[in-house]
Amino acid sequence: MPFPDQVSYVKSNKLGDAVLGSISVVIPHLDESLLPPPTCFAEIRAQLIEQLKCLDQQCELRVQLLQDLQDFFRKKAEIEMDYSRNLEKLAERFLAKTRSTKDQQFKKDQNVLSPVNCWNLLLNQVKRESRDHTTLSDIYLNNIIPRFVQVSEDSGRLFKKSKEVGQQLQEDLMKVLNELYTVMKTYHMYNADSISAQSKLKEAEKQEEKQIGKSVKQEEKQTPRSPDSASSVKFEEKHVRRSSVKKIEKMKEKRQAKYTENKLKAIKARNEYLLALEATNASVFKYYIHDLSDLIDQCCDLGYHASLGRALRTFLSAELNLEQSKHEGLDAIENAVENLDANSDKQRLMEMCNSVFCPPMKFEFQPHMGDMVFQLCAQQPVQSELVQRCQQLQSRLSTLKIENEEVKKTMEATLQTIQDIVTIEDFDVSDCFQYSNSMESVKSTVSETFMSKPSIAKRRANQQETEQFYFTKLKEYLEGRNLITKLQAKHDLLQKTLGESQRTDCSLASRRSSTIRKQDSSQAIPLVVESCIRFISRHGLQHEGIFRVSGSQVEVNDIKNAFERGKSSCVCLCVCFCASGFKRR
Amino acid sequence: MPFPDQVSYVKSNKLGDAVLGSISVVIPHLDESLLPPPTCFAEIRAQLIEQLKCLDQQCELRVQLLQDLQDFFRKKAEIEMDYSRNLEKLAERFLAKTRSTKDQQFKKDQNVLSPVNCWNLLLNQVKRESRDHTTLSDIYLNNIIPRFVQVSEDSGRLFKKSKEVGQQLQEDLMKVLNELYTVMKTYHMYNADSISAQSKLKEAEKQEEKQIGKSVKQEEKQTPRSPDSASSVKFEEKHVRRSSVKKIEKMKEKRQAKYTENKLKAIKARNEYLLALEATNASVFKYYIHDLSDLIDQCCDLGYHASLGRALRTFLSAELNLEQSKHEGLDAIENAVENLDANSDKQRLMEMCNSVFCPPMKFEFQPHMGDMVFQLCAQQPVQSELVQRCQQLQSRLSTLKIENEEVKKTMEATLQTIQDIVTIEDFDVSDCFQYSNSMESVKSTVSETFMSKPSIAKRRANQQETEQFYFTKLKEYLEGRNLITKLQAKHDLLQKTLGESQRTDCSLASRRSSTIRKQDSSQAIPLVVESCIRFISRHGLQHEGIFRVSGSQVEVNDIKNAFERGKSSCVCLCVCFCASGFKRR
Repeated sequence: MPFPDQVSYVKSNKLGDAVLGSISVVIPHLDESLLPPPTCFAEIRAQLIEQLKCLDQQCELRVQLLQDLQDFFRKKAEIEMDYSRNLEKLAERFLAKTRSTKDQQFKKDQNVLSPVNCWNLLLNQVKRESRDHTTLSDIYLNNIIPRFVQVSEDSGRLFKKSKEVGQQLQEDLMKVLNELYTVMKTYHMYNADSISAQSKLKEAEKQEEKQIGKSVKQEEKQTPRSPDSASSVKFEEKHVRRSSVKKIEKMKEKRQAKYTENKLKAIKARNEYLLALEATNASVFKYYIHDLSDLIDQCCDLGYHASLGRALRTFLSAELNLEQSKHEGLDAIENAVENLDANSDKQRLMEMCNSVFCPPMKFEFQPHMGDMVFQLCAQQPVQSELVQRCQQLQSRLSTLKIENEEVKKTMEATLQTIQDIVTIEDFDVSDCFQYSNSMESVKSTVSETFMSKPSIAKRRANQQETEQFYFTKLKEYLEGRNLITKLQAKHDLLQKTLGESQRTDCSLASRRSSTIRKQDSSQAIPLVVESCIRFISRHGLQHEGIFRVSGSQVEVNDIKNAFERGKSSCVCLCVCFCASGFKRR
Repeated sequence: MPFPDQVSYVKSNKLGDAVLGSISVVIPHLDESLLPPPTCFAEIRAQLIEQLKCLDQQCELRVQLLQDLQDFFRKKAEIEMDYSRNLEKLAERFLAKTRSTKDQQFKKDQNVLSPVNCWNLLLNQVKRESRDHTTLSDIYLNNIIPRFVQVSEDSGRLFKKSKEVGQQLQEDLMKVLNELYTVMKTYHMYNADSISAQSKLKEAEKQEEKQIGKSVKQEEKQTPRSPDSASSVKFEEKHVRRSSVKKIEKMKEKRQAKYTENKLKAIKARNEYLLALEATNASVFKYYIHDLSDLIDQCCDLGYHASLGRALRTFLSAELNLEQSKHEGLDAIENAVENLDANSDKQRLMEMCNSVFCPPMKFEFQPHMGDMVFQLCAQQPVQSELVQRCQQLQSRLSTLKIENEEVKKTMEATLQTIQDIVTIEDFDVSDCFQYSNSMESVKSTVSETFMSKPSIAKRRANQQETEQFYFTKLKEYLEGRNLITKLQAKHDLLQKTLGESQRTDCSLASRRSSTIRKQDSSQAIPLVVESCIRFISRHGLQHEGIFRVSGSQVEVNDIKNAFERGKSSCVCLCVCFCASGFKRR
């Protein structure tokens, strides 16, 4: 019980005394300790004790909450550190494998392939997440937990001080109540005195009346008798009566004065009581409506919510930064997945193994023993035979081309079917994260998503069947293309030669063409240009330059100027390109 | 070595035979196995083998990559499951504690306090993350890994088929090359025959010339001699010479025919060679530029990149869903942190402990023994004393109020300083996630952020000093307010009474006022309304209704109608409110 004895209240009631003193009411001696306080005072005092108990309890809960938060973040820091270490181990396991590979250059080359790029970014992401969870753990331990420790300290200190203030306010309130009690008792006492004085005065007035009534009667009784014989008796009687009346009058006056005095005292005491009542009610209202509220504010407002909020905001900031970092990594992976490209990988592979995929030199005519004829001879007697053969080839080719075009169409349609199967957008797993309110059916939901669908097995069987058909058609198409290529080459040469032989005779043509062989349309492309074209058609589409990705304007202008100065534009462009292409690798 | 023996090529060269047959070139017997193939053929064959080896290697790397991806996700699934279990344990540890608390209702009440709400959301978030990481793990195992298995299977199967196609294409190419070789040899042979026939013809022509020259000489020699004696000899000689010339001529004719025949054969063979050369170059170009590219496409395009992409997109979808779920939880926590509010918590606390914080009944005047005067008596002789006292109180109050206002200002300024300290926005930990390229300095960066800053200790010392000063000022202010409240209540009562006594005499006033006491301005408020006001001022600001948060229009109209039917609006409103307020709890 935080309250001192009630008596000490009244004795130390200096403010009350000062007020009472200023209106000069003389309080009669009262032994307050002998007067029991009213029941409502005890009830109020019990309520005041409960109020402090309630605040005590809140403080305890607060301390407990802060302790829980510390324990929670300490344990979570461990979990995050554990997770981080496991991720680090996972990344290292595969990165070490990459590093241990002997052929570093080869690995370097492989890295430019788009699936390998995805894989590397996946490992990077794990490393990044590992690092971020270490940071998170560290922030928990070295920032958030110390904040909770501080909040706990501050909260305890503030509560202690607030409780002191509360106790002071309650003491003051009890003083006011006791003051009211005292003043009420005083009023009751003075009023009792006033009533008693009044009744005594009334008694005196009654006696006086009685005395006056008696002497009038006696005078009336004595009047019919002889006035002389009775006069001495009368005189004596009159004298006795007069002194008695005087005595009564004196008493009455005395009692009147006493009553007036007590009446004034009672009025003053009542006034004092009424004033104290007003002050008490105001104080009680103030305490319950303002003081209690302010008291709780002291426990709450002085930083508890704000500091707790800051600690939690630190947690949120850490989590959001982790999220952002993770998201950046996922963006990079997403970008790499977007760039998964079979065609550019093919180009890169061919660049990597350039010697393996580079076409051999063109086969040249090997003349026998100084044979000077390098061209088809279309003179008679072979001319008609060649003409016939050219016609046969032409009709054969047109049939073959139509047939092979059909095969190609079928093949391409089949390929499209396969590509439709393999590019089906079945990768959204949002459903798995839409939990029902109960958390029991998680497993089954996920399992359904990909593997358990009966359509998957059917789809895969279908895919393989389509694939098989595709390869059949592919082989058919490639065989047809092989034959067409050979026959077309022969046909074209025959047609060209026969066309020429109509203008010139065979020997002349053969002699002339042997000298201008390099400028002939069938042989028109110089070897260096042919090589450049090969290079460009293979690698050119992947490189920056004037071919696809626009290069620097300066370089383009240099090439233009070189062309305008009269150099062969084609060779120049090709050589420029080759040089930049090789530099690039 | 995937290539069958070279001889078998030529023997199975049906397409080539067909073409050759159509131009009816008779190929002389050639034992191809005895003729060594040119060096460039061997080089090309070696290159073709390398090409398949290169594709083999790519396939192996692909299989290895897919195996690594499976291992990676299997291990990561374990890590995620582990993390999930740890989070689950963490959440359960604290949730169990909450559940074990005996006083369920009390706990329920506590939950409405804003810090407890934050704590509950924090635990919910851990449960949510636990659940999400389980889902993630499950998606890895039951969706992503099976996808990689499928990609691996598909990729291997496609590679095998593609390799078959490639081998076929290479066989076809080698056939073409061998065909060229054969045709070239044929040309060389026929050309050699043609040259030999030509030289034999030339020899015959020489002999003929010689023979003709000899007979002309003999005839010229014989002419100057006797014509008769020499005529028989001449005739015999002439006969012999004629038969010799005839013989030579016959031989020459025969050799001419042979040469013409061989010459035609050589021309035809050269034509055939030239056509084969054209066809071969076209086939080689086709193989290197088109076939090889198509071949690699078969390994790559038929779903490898697309299926790998889908598997990785599944991973991304899972990660992004996890991120979104986590973010939703963090948003909820952020919202709860925003709603950390000392004032509403105070209101809730007072609602929870309503009986403890509810003001007692107003103290009523306790008249002594039928005393009928309930008001201050301001008649003479106490009147002048009361007037003086009222003046004294007024001047005392104005001084006290000025003084206390100063104290209040200082107190409020101090509170503001404390609030500035506790609401400082020091919770951004973005810096901790901005790593330098090396990952070594993570620890030091984090530690600096909150605890190691020298300003923190200083700030805390400063905070406590300010706090101490604040409490000193607070006590001073509250003491002042206590005194002012009491004096003000007395002063107001005095002033009111003295104002009234100027209009009516004391006894009249006291008698009148005793009858209309309940309607008097100081007592004007009926008890039920007073209670309602108390209730509203305490709880009303938190509740839905017409006071702050707008309630349903129906209820508001009901109240309006009740008012218009003539019921006391104030009481009605209050009662309505109280009813809804109590119902709410």
